[in-house]
Amino acid sequence: MAPIEAHVKEPLLKLEDLPTPAIVADAARVEANLALMARAHPGSALRPHVKAHKSTALAKRQAAHGHRTFCAATVREVEGMAAAGLGEDLLLANETLDATRLGEVVRSGARVTVAVDSIETIEAALSGGVPEVLIDVNVGLPRCGCAPEQAGALGEEARRRGLRVRGVMGYEGHIVGLPERDRREAGCEASMQMLLAAHADVGGDIISAGGTGSYDCNSWATEIQAGSYALMDTAYAQLGLPFVQAFFVLSTVLSVSSDYAIGDAGLKCFGMDHGNPALPGARVLFCSDEHVTFVPGRGEKDRSPSLLDWELVGPVRVGDRIRLVPAHVDPTLAYHERLYVADGDEIIDEWEIDLRGW
Amino acid sequence: MAPIEAHVKEPLLKLEDLPTPAIVADAARVEANLALMARAHPGSALRPHVKAHKSTALAKRQAAHGHRTFCAATVREVEGMAAAGLGEDLLLANETLDATRLGEVVRSGARVTVAVDSIETIEAALSGGVPEVLIDVNVGLPRCGCAPEQAGALGEEARRRGLRVRGVMGYEGHIVGLPERDRREAGCEASMQMLLAAHADVGGDIISAGGTGSYDCNSWATEIQAGSYALMDTAYAQLGLPFVQAFFVLSTVLSVSSDYAIGDAGLKCFGMDHGNPALPGARVLFCSDEHVTFVPGRGEKDRSPSLLDWELVGPVRVGDRIRLVPAHVDPTLAYHERLYVADGDEIIDEWEIDLRGW
Repeated sequence: MAPIEAHVKEPLLKLEDLPTPAIVADAARVEANLALMARAHPGSALRPHVKAHKSTALAKRQAAHGHRTFCAATVREVEGMAAAGLGEDLLLANETLDATRLGEVVRSGARVTVAVDSIETIEAALSGGVPEVLIDVNVGLPRCGCAPEQAGALGEEARRRGLRVRGVMGYEGHIVGLPERDRREAGCEASMQMLLAAHADVGGDIISAGGTGSYDCNSWATEIQAGSYALMDTAYAQLGLPFVQAFFVLSTVLSVSSDYAIGDAGLKCFGMDHGNPALPGARVLFCSDEHVTFVPGRGEKDRSPSLLDWELVGPVRVGDRIRLVPAHVDPTLAYHERLYVADGDEIIDEWEIDLRGW
Repeated sequence: MAPIEAHVKEPLLKLEDLPTPAIVADAARVEANLALMARAHPGSALRPHVKAHKSTALAKRQAAHGHRTFCAATVREVEGMAAAGLGEDLLLANETLDATRLGEVVRSGARVTVAVDSIETIEAALSGGVPEVLIDVNVGLPRCGCAPEQAGALGEEARRRGLRVRGVMGYEGHIVGLPERDRREAGCEASMQMLLAAHADVGGDIISAGGTGSYDCNSWATEIQAGSYALMDTAYAQLGLPFVQAFFVLSTVLSVSSDYAIGDAGLKCFGMDHGNPALPGARVLFCSDEHVTFVPGRGEKDRSPSLLDWELVGPVRVGDRIRLVPAHVDPTLAYHERLYVADGDEIIDEWEIDLRGW
């Protein structure tokens, strides 16, 4: 087996030579997803959410598809994006009580806007030195955001204190994962009516909302905050969207018994809140810290092409490689240091997942 | 609010000054857990499992309590322990098909033993240059390990090829989490009878088994592989063990509505396979990537002292700090770069979680 350093010295490292567990993205699939979204929401109509992938290298691919505005969920993501030269228009789509580090990013020359939903978060923006805000409005998801009827007063207060209020934000996260398209559409419309009412009170150019699950039914927002579409996961695969599964966790079979087999990828490889990873053609029984126990299939053709057409796990032997598909992309990538980029079986690049942590 | 660098410059940084989310360990509680375990299993009767905390700094505290033998679940953990000067007797309690890096650790002067359960893993140890092995035996958990009746032949084959077989290993992981003590004891005994039978065929000095959940009922193993006892989590708290909850995730309340409140710690802070983190006195509704949504309590005294006696969440305001208790310690720590160590409200140390990755 090749030594670990091989990928540095040898440009034609193969998938089979990677140390495992490893996250691998399929370059053509990533590009297809990015291109599809850029056609649907070109330029600033999409504000790609970097929380899904936490990689400035992948964000640069999104920029190459025409997007120059980004949003982030953590201060570290904002810092990293600015340091990578992607600081033209960064939105922290989240509240913070300490905007000191964001203010430093502003003073470094980047444009930073922060979401606020209270007097306290307005004060934090002011004292940290972040001059621009969006009023974050609760449109049905039990999370941050002021009540729609409070948005106008908050916007007024922010302006009175000298902040520039660019508009409103409201994430319909309670409906983006609904598998039935008509319920997604109806829920999205109801949420966006609340956001439009708030926007009428607040003003500004921006109505920021949406995600991968509502990218094609949210016609009210001026910009869509989608992130998962680039790589996808088994949860989003259930929605019937045109984006394809573009990454997997490569694992080595460590042990095989008569009833099941074990791969070297476990709880520290996968965000588990949406359940076990999928192993096309096989049945995953459970994950331990560093293991996945699965029942190999018989190698039949699988029925779910967008998720599964690259691999079917039939009978396995010790040393075989398997490809697991995570249930939730965001907390999966947060565990890993790098994303290998493959063209077929060849590793052609390595993207650091450099926006991890806080 | 203090800038992030404060903890470097200012030895008396307070808990309330930490940037959030942050993992914090209570120094006295960690020491109490380490001392209690060292009394039950002194010296080499315990082989602390570093996979639970992934921190050489914490491993050094375990060494200070008399333990010089450690076990690990990944090659990186073995490398890091050796590099930290803790390489006296390291067991990779897991199979590997590529022992090249382990062999380098051996050549650097550390003692490394690796678990094997097949001809292929024996060959990997040989070709990587790892001279010592344990025969890993399946004692009921559907994971790695040969069938007990195959152990003797594997041990013989390993010796025939020139490896030193130090004994057997078999993890009764299917019973360590059973809340009923009598079922744990009976399950442990049944598993250990299988392991003893395998040991009779294999020979060697070591019978390695057990975990935090069986530390006081496994009297057959020569060494216990426990890790969670140092920090604990809500899953282990249900077993009624004498170890106390010794760490939490510190979070800032970002937003408060009439029905619930939001903290800045979410799916990228917590291993979620055992469910939501606990928030003593309050009710956690769900976690998103960077948020926890919870219903604050009324501040009544809670009933579960070992888990909860340091904090009760009554009504909260924006900017308040809350302390969340993770459901599963191992995959929680794997998300974080460092563990702050507190003496009451003072931060007295910072332990890097330096064994992350693979």
